[in-house]
Amino acid sequence: MENFIVETSARHIHLTTEAVEILYGKGAELIVKKMLSQPGQFATANEKLTLIGPRGTLQASVLGPVRKANQVELSFTDARALGLKDVPVRESGDLAGTPGIKIVGPAGEIEIDEGVIIAKRHIHMTPEDAERFGVKDKQIVSVKLDTARPLIFGDVVVRVSSNYALAMHIDTDEANASCAFGEVFGTIVY
Amino acid sequence: MENFIVETSARHIHLTTEAVEILYGKGAELIVKKMLSQPGQFATANEKLTLIGPRGTLQASVLGPVRKANQVELSFTDARALGLKDVPVRESGDLAGTPGIKIVGPAGEIEIDEGVIIAKRHIHMTPEDAERFGVKDKQIVSVKLDTARPLIFGDVVVRVSSNYALAMHIDTDEANASCAFGEVFGTIVY
Repeated sequence: MENFIVETSARHIHLTTEAVEILYGKGAELIVKKMLSQPGQFATANEKLTLIGPRGTLQASVLGPVRKANQVELSFTDARALGLKDVPVRESGDLAGTPGIKIVGPAGEIEIDEGVIIAKRHIHMTPEDAERFGVKDKQIVSVKLDTARPLIFGDVVVRVSSNYALAMHIDTDEANASCAFGEVFGTIVY
Repeated sequence: MENFIVETSARHIHLTTEAVEILYGKGAELIVKKMLSQPGQFATANEKLTLIGPRGTLQASVLGPVRKANQVELSFTDARALGLKDVPVRESGDLAGTPGIKIVGPAGEIEIDEGVIIAKRHIHMTPEDAERFGVKDKQIVSVKLDTARPLIFGDVVVRVSSNYALAMHIDTDEANASCAFGEVFGTIVY
């Protein structure tokens, strides 16, 4: 059975051009620190931002490039630490009705009305990958991890685009629950 | 398929009689706040204790009754917050070679040489339950949760004793990864 890498996304923030200028200062831009597995996506060298929740604060790094909407991706552990209730498990970009939060940077702060999600576990793949695995965009599959805490994740959404590279993304709670530390691979189970 | 309740164990501490007297004062005892699912086991009304790790501190409650050995049960999230490396996933009581930690209470403190574990997910059951499910003590099974984040936990150890009551125990990372919030049930999958 062909497999794919399983990567853990720690909490992070996506910003609009406007938000970057407010948080980091007029004319500021996102600076590439390290390219990520998905083509064009990168970890930034910009200072971490502070998320201010009703009950606590957390630092979070910013991923680039800029997007059309601000988005904060947390784990349930993070949401609890911030005191944010009812943060939904959602696909990236599906932000209607999600909670907002205050974000503080070195040059300013913003209060977003919505955009806080817990990312739904997903597999990025190209159309060629999808054909090889026999799956389609938006299909829900189960993925097995043979780790020290083996499990089968249900409700994993397949996302197909020629702009993607083959990789599954889970959050830190999911990584802890499965001991998905270091280089880990998953297989689709039918 | 017959099912069983899935309970989440937050981080907690088991203490010896000696440790109770050092931490809470001479003559102090563990006070029952609430009985738990396992017969005789209880949440205590005693003040929470502070775990002092190399990188951080956390508060943890104490479960009763007293035991023969001090034991601290964490999640990977907790272990990371404390800065404790190499905390193993172990069954309760299997403490050889596990890390130690400093524990501070209102009347004193102790430094344990070993006893910090991440509890291996498990199902408590009576011999009658085991017969009904067709499993044996120490058998490894997989357990399916039909939650908002459905999954199948592998490597779940069955623990059979007439002193137990039927219940599966997972940690907070595992609860977050499966949305096992509120009243949740699991089924053994074969």
